[in-house]
Amino acid sequence: MISKNLLKYIHSLQLKKFRKTHNAFLVEGAKSVTELLESDFQVQTVLTTADFVQKNNFLFKNPSFECYIITEDELAKAGTFQTNDAALAVAAIKPNDPVYVQGNEYVLMLDDVRDPGNLGTIIRIADWYGIKKIICSEQTADWYNPKTIAASMGSFTRVKGYYCKLDEYLKQAESIPVYGAFLDGENIHHVRFPEKGIVVMGNESNGISAELGRKISHKVSIPAFGKAESLNVAIATAVICDNIRRFA
Amino acid sequence: MISKNLLKYIHSLQLKKFRKTHNAFLVEGAKSVTELLESDFQVQTVLTTADFVQKNNFLFKNPSFECYIITEDELAKAGTFQTNDAALAVAAIKPNDPVYVQGNEYVLMLDDVRDPGNLGTIIRIADWYGIKKIICSEQTADWYNPKTIAASMGSFTRVKGYYCKLDEYLKQAESIPVYGAFLDGENIHHVRFPEKGIVVMGNESNGISAELGRKISHKVSIPAFGKAESLNVAIATAVICDNIRRFA
Repeated sequence: MISKNLLKYIHSLQLKKFRKTHNAFLVEGAKSVTELLESDFQVQTVLTTADFVQKNNFLFKNPSFECYIITEDELAKAGTFQTNDAALAVAAIKPNDPVYVQGNEYVLMLDDVRDPGNLGTIIRIADWYGIKKIICSEQTADWYNPKTIAASMGSFTRVKGYYCKLDEYLKQAESIPVYGAFLDGENIHHVRFPEKGIVVMGNESNGISAELGRKISHKVSIPAFGKAESLNVAIATAVICDNIRRFA
Repeated sequence: MISKNLLKYIHSLQLKKFRKTHNAFLVEGAKSVTELLESDFQVQTVLTTADFVQKNNFLFKNPSFECYIITEDELAKAGTFQTNDAALAVAAIKPNDPVYVQGNEYVLMLDDVRDPGNLGTIIRIADWYGIKKIICSEQTADWYNPKTIAASMGSFTRVKGYYCKLDEYLKQAESIPVYGAFLDGENIHHVRFPEKGIVVMGNESNGISAELGRKISHKVSIPAFGKAESLNVAIATAVICDNIRRFA
């Protein structure tokens, strides 16, 4: 059992407004909570089942967080998952510290990717391809939305997000090649990617805004062989990252 | 206005059981309905708004289907979308006719891909990469689930699905190279793909079943550069198709 007040607090974190007020967010499910507890995030509270504690005893040896054992039903009621037989955690949001391209690395830049599921999937893709930083426009989906966290499958613990005005960011990054995904750019199968760069992905419906587009030095495209008009933004991100990793 | 009976019939098509009984399925939204009306699917009924008819007059010049003009609100109530300012259609399900690898082509094979959103996204990816046929295990998500149709973004009109026992299918395809996505296969960046083949993608949680795995001649993997444990099955499908298209 947990108190009504705690339950109310946890429910409130489903909304961005309250995540901001409390500077805290939700993490749900076995894989995500395990990765959270092994990360440098500051964990405040964990709700978990006796079975999960038994199987993952090492995570709970010396807890620096409040920890409640509850039932699966209570767990599902507390969070956003339809079922949850493992755990739910509340952790502190990290400060929005700027990140820069350092040495030979690629970073992603998202121009109003609105769907939290797409953002979470992109975080997971970045982590797969060893990309550690994602620059997000202020209208991009919230990094700490429960759907973003769930879709990232624990990768939110390894990839850093930074929200800012993208055109201003690019001003200070003048020496870095900027690649943007368009429907009429150079075929990525023919691009010789350098050792570092920024890869810009656009909004689900409108792509990269015209204004930002003018600041992109290299327009690239995924070649089409059939008749679909476009690819989902997360799919396109993965294909571009895979092409970059043939070189850099 | 439409009759209560028609509304009830349309609602029933959200469930596979009733899609089977009536041999009919739902298509929602401007892009999907436009592609449907331009395809060879047999369309039975279209509900649409006056605005959509005005903008897409050519689709309604000589309709061979029942066509009702209704409001956006009624449209949303009839279908599964939260909002729909365009159209909803009912069309006949095509027979489950076998498809084969003919000449130099690639086909996809899905071993229990359970999520209709993933299946729809894979149909869209196949269409992008010019793959026209997808062989699905009987436990794969339903091709005609409204979520599959929505995620395919109209590509369901161009890609054919065939549900069957995969091991039996592979018996009659003995001369075709079979590639399967595993976590410990050959790096796809180094695979020299031939002109034709079957690409097998596995279940979201368990990958390709052990039994089917024994029938796969070429195990391939997407190289990882970071720490994510896996990629979503639709993401992996896109990356593999992109690598195949460098050759075939």
